[in-house]
Amino acid sequence: MTPAFDVLRSAYAELTVTDLAASRAFYVDLLGLVVSHEDDEAIYLRGWEERLHHSIVLRQGPVAGVRRIGFRVRSEDDLAPLAARLEALGSTVSWVDGELRGMGRALRATDPFGFPLEFFYAIEQFPTQLQRFDIQRGAPIMRFDHFNFHSPQVETTFAFWQQLGFRCSEYISTDGENEQIAGAWLLRKPGVHDVALTLGTGPRLHHIGLYVAEPAGVLHACDQLAAAEHSYTIERGPGRHGVSNAFFVYLRDPDGHRVELYSCDYYTGDPDLKPLRWSVSDPRCRSFWGTRAPDSWYEESSLLLTADGSTVPTFAAGVDERQARTEVMA
Amino acid sequence: MTPAFDVLRSAYAELTVTDLAASRAFYVDLLGLVVSHEDDEAIYLRGWEERLHHSIVLRQGPVAGVRRIGFRVRSEDDLAPLAARLEALGSTVSWVDGELRGMGRALRATDPFGFPLEFFYAIEQFPTQLQRFDIQRGAPIMRFDHFNFHSPQVETTFAFWQQLGFRCSEYISTDGENEQIAGAWLLRKPGVHDVALTLGTGPRLHHIGLYVAEPAGVLHACDQLAAAEHSYTIERGPGRHGVSNAFFVYLRDPDGHRVELYSCDYYTGDPDLKPLRWSVSDPRCRSFWGTRAPDSWYEESSLLLTADGSTVPTFAAGVDERQARTEVMA
Amino acid sequence: MTPAFDVLRSAYAELTVTDLAASRAFYVDLLGLVVSHEDDEAIYLRGWEERLHHSIVLRQGPVAGVRRIGFRVRSEDDLAPLAARLEALGSTVSWVDGELRGMGRALRATDPFGFPLEFFYAIEQFPTQLQRFDIQRGAPIMRFDHFNFHSPQVETTFAFWQQLGFRCSEYISTDGENEQIAGAWLLRKPGVHDVALTLGTGPRLHHIGLYVAEPAGVLHACDQLAAAEHSYTIERGPGRHGVSNAFFVYLRDPDGHRVELYSCDYYTGDPDLKPLRWSVSDPRCRSFWGTRAPDSWYEESSLLLTADGSTVPTFAAGVDERQARTEVMA
Amino acid sequence: MTPAFDVLRSAYAELTVTDLAASRAFYVDLLGLVVSHEDDEAIYLRGWEERLHHSIVLRQGPVAGVRRIGFRVRSEDDLAPLAARLEALGSTVSWVDGELRGMGRALRATDPFGFPLEFFYAIEQFPTQLQRFDIQRGAPIMRFDHFNFHSPQVETTFAFWQQLGFRCSEYISTDGENEQIAGAWLLRKPGVHDVALTLGTGPRLHHIGLYVAEPAGVLHACDQLAAAEHSYTIERGPGRHGVSNAFFVYLRDPDGHRVELYSCDYYTGDPDLKPLRWSVSDPRCRSFWGTRAPDSWYEESSLLLTADGSTVPTFAAGVDERQARTEVMA
Repeated sequence: MTPAFDVLRSAYAELTVTDLAASRAFYVDLLGLVVSHEDDEAIYLRGWEERLHHSIVLRQGPVAGVRRIGFRVRSEDDLAPLAARLEALGSTVSWVDGELRGMGRALRATDPFGFPLEFFYAIEQFPTQLQRFDIQRGAPIMRFDHFNFHSPQVETTFAFWQQLGFRCSEYISTDGENEQIAGAWLLRKPGVHDVALTLGTGPRLHHIGLYVAEPAGVLHACDQLAAAEHSYTIERGPGRHGVSNAFFVYLRDPDGHRVELYSCDYYTGDPDLKPLRWSVSDPRCRSFWGTRAPDSWYEESSLLLTADGSTVPTFAAGVDERQARTEVMA
Repeated sequence: MTPAFDVLRSAYAELTVTDLAASRAFYVDLLGLVVSHEDDEAIYLRGWEERLHHSIVLRQGPVAGVRRIGFRVRSEDDLAPLAARLEALGSTVSWVDGELRGMGRALRATDPFGFPLEFFYAIEQFPTQLQRFDIQRGAPIMRFDHFNFHSPQVETTFAFWQQLGFRCSEYISTDGENEQIAGAWLLRKPGVHDVALTLGTGPRLHHIGLYVAEPAGVLHACDQLAAAEHSYTIERGPGRHGVSNAFFVYLRDPDGHRVELYSCDYYTGDPDLKPLRWSVSDPRCRSFWGTRAPDSWYEESSLLLTADGSTVPTFAAGVDERQARTEVMA
Repeated sequence: MTPAFDVLRSAYAELTVTDLAASRAFYVDLLGLVVSHEDDEAIYLRGWEERLHHSIVLRQGPVAGVRRIGFRVRSEDDLAPLAARLEALGSTVSWVDGELRGMGRALRATDPFGFPLEFFYAIEQFPTQLQRFDIQRGAPIMRFDHFNFHSPQVETTFAFWQQLGFRCSEYISTDGENEQIAGAWLLRKPGVHDVALTLGTGPRLHHIGLYVAEPAGVLHACDQLAAAEHSYTIERGPGRHGVSNAFFVYLRDPDGHRVELYSCDYYTGDPDLKPLRWSVSDPRCRSFWGTRAPDSWYEESSLLLTADGSTVPTFAAGVDERQARTEVMA
Repeated sequence: MTPAFDVLRSAYAELTVTDLAASRAFYVDLLGLVVSHEDDEAIYLRGWEERLHHSIVLRQGPVAGVRRIGFRVRSEDDLAPLAARLEALGSTVSWVDGELRGMGRALRATDPFGFPLEFFYAIEQFPTQLQRFDIQRGAPIMRFDHFNFHSPQVETTFAFWQQLGFRCSEYISTDGENEQIAGAWLLRKPGVHDVALTLGTGPRLHHIGLYVAEPAGVLHACDQLAAAEHSYTIERGPGRHGVSNAFFVYLRDPDGHRVELYSCDYYTGDPDLKPLRWSVSDPRCRSFWGTRAPDSWYEESSLLLTADGSTVPTFAAGVDERQARTEVMA
């Protein structure tokens, strides 16, 4: 069944940080994101090619966490049927209007797993800075690309997102008779993913993915971070994923929020694109070149926040976590 | 009004060539496209990441020309309402089934300007070779990207394509009171374009655009062509367009068909993306770095073929062509 | 005969400019060279990896010209025998001490053709900024690479430089019985050249070559210049030379001094390296990809200055210049 | 004291391998080195720009080991005084003539530490394939760059190489009063090194370094190896060294010989270049980005072979090896 609504794509993350100045140094001074607005409470950022008011909002808070996981819909008219679907799927929904700078009406939802979602159409736009090569600095981060969730219930979560119209480009599953999905890459825009689900203690946000124009940009980001004595922020990579073909590096911001700089996506817009399956026993799905990821990459993730600012409780994955580490993540 | 059909994207070109072996040397041996099928009459090619049976078909013929400009639709059900729309817009339509290898039913149309269009859903698929880095050779051509038409009637043609649901990402127009559009970049998939319309003697096909992963891939293609003593096939560039931000090179195949190797696209999927306007008097729209294009690039284009294999008559653009050369093209 | 002195390499150019602020904007703000010192009269610049006090000196003057073409020798002891050789070859020599900031004793010579040469050992050093990726900006210009002279007497000039111990890596010569050298690439450090001699009205300085880490750096420089509305400074390229295999772009500074951003050199340090010969009739020596250079690139060059600041008279090349344009330059 | 001889550079390695066909698949089919000659006993390889007959010789043998560590001298006349110096420094020397294909007379020496050295001038040359972009395949390995030795006596070995005229570009030393050198990068050609000495069980050959044109070439090599299901050959990286600024990857050939693909060198030809010092306690010297190297990279190295084919005994480094692992290597 085609949904009666159209989610365009993942669009923005709102993260709480415990030291806004330190976060600014990381995201603006070192990574080179463009500041759309900043005040004492929050900084609104966007990538070099982006026109929407923000794709990352950093908000000063008492604890580090994930306040909002934002998606854009095609029109205002998509929001009501989407709200109905979300409720039918067990989410609680609410409406806000203009709560975040630059934004209008938005549909908020806490999904059955605890993720604080938001869907919106109305938002201010800025001119793109895509061709302002003269003032660009830092890493060539073009645009927001995707969310990656840590979930102890990948299959159930997968079914939820399919009910919102998300298709699957690639997945990892167990071998043998009782195939179980241990990772899934789900999309609305025609790249590899808007949302990835990977097995792990959750619900948590494993990382946000930011699109970088080419692998050299990922290397350049590492060089800049290291030269500024921030090499400790480089957690994993650079390297190549088998799943998604991404050339990636994973960074940890000053609060431990994980940011993937991601390049080398491919086109997935044709509706009969057959999902690529990877076996959990194929080491190349995680790391095409065979490089081992550090334990932290499997074990640590950002906690989600409820509307009142408390953290959402998490549950361990139903399988042995050590097995998940070596087999499931990509 | 939202169309009752959904054209996904530009998908393939069928070109007649006068020496199939010479064309094979160019497209396969030097550019490195993947052969899906070949026989004495035709070669079916695809890019490294592509799964559909073909994105370029080269067919031996008595004269060089353009037999088919192919688009994929979302489903079989899109074809009938699309046929109705095409007829309402003054096109003649017909149906074929399995005429091209790997394809099923397809809707053919000669549009009011003479372009031989085709719309299809049914087509065989191959496994992607995206990660077969070990057998890839030549230039990293990932996928078909777009068509660029030469037209003496850009505004009328623009209106036609809008009626098929195409949106505009960028355009070039004259200054002053009677703004006239002299170039337009129109899209269905969320890149800069599936179809570009530029002022010139037409109807003709100015070029097909093939997406290359990064600028270094464009340079590598030039090096390979030159080393193989085919530098005469390099017509323009490498360089940067202002319009579309493409890092490009234009090649001419052995019959003069023009192929753009195109990298550095950006995301255009949000429906309220405001088209970027370039003035015809801004030299950067054509060439961001100011490099002059050769006259051939403005004057020469591939002739279209009718169903019976004759060439479609062309008309000069209504403005002075020399002015078009220096002002309109990007 | 091995010379009794050892010229290490080409090291720096001193250029007069008519608007020091405009030159600073070009070399520092846009190209990203590092400022070692600046005052009202002059700016001393170096590349990202360079440790010597300067490789380019820009000096405010009444006319644009070339004050000094600087080479470093292995030790102070090399200067006296070098002075003797220069005089024996018809040069006038003189000595200075500390005339330029950061420098000690230096041997100056006006060679028989009029070039204002300087040879030195003593110079202050700075820490390299090779790994200061966090503060680098602009184009990745690593170091000074070479001088290219316009000369109406290539063969005689070639013989002069061989007497100073320079070896030839590549040359262009006429076909047939009376082979004449029309271009020569001469080296001391083991890259393709420290000095190139090309046929043209002279004596003049055709360009200085600055080494850029990789082709992507050359493209980045173009993008930055264009974004800053300085695309008019891009005269030729980017492109590939057959001679030297350079991936290049030629820029013109605000006074018309030509700067080549040069990447893709190769190792030439073995003494029995056989020079590569290119025929003047091989179009790939000039432009591997076949791109035509603009006339200005063949016709315009920086005038040399005498010690009293007047310009050195020039003479046309003995062959038809139009022929030189299409056949000789690379 | 200036030596009465001139070693140009490190030039070639001769390695024994236990399965010549497997080695051929690795070095030729996957890495893309050019075959100069091959027969049942040995394969002679060179890089894309190299003209000398070989820079790697693979010889079928009963055990994997290092038969010869080759350096080129400036002329035949350098060999006799070099032999005298080597003997004075405690080496045993001998002469061969034409033992290896393509070579003439050569001076062999077993140095006081057990390294099987060779110095030669006479060798056949081939045309360069630098611009044969059309036939190049695999990784863009341009030329041989350096040897890296594992030694338990870095300071003594350092002194030995200085006596052969090698200068130091960078070194790692302990902090405090009794500074001890734990790693040294020594050069003759003006790059960062021809020979690196690093603390570890030895004498052994830690790796040979092959120069790759740019970081993208290093990534491409990894992709090709992984696609061909040889990702197990990727031992460390890709990554950036602080020492040398190399962008590197370390591979292990089918016999475990380690090959570094090395890019991003810098110019070191000025005689007063001050060596850069790194403290053993600075983590960036080993890994600029902070990535941990696997234990194998510190512990495993190729055994040296004596003239009769037996392996040279090794000794543990005088410091705790675990400390060496985390502090010394770069």
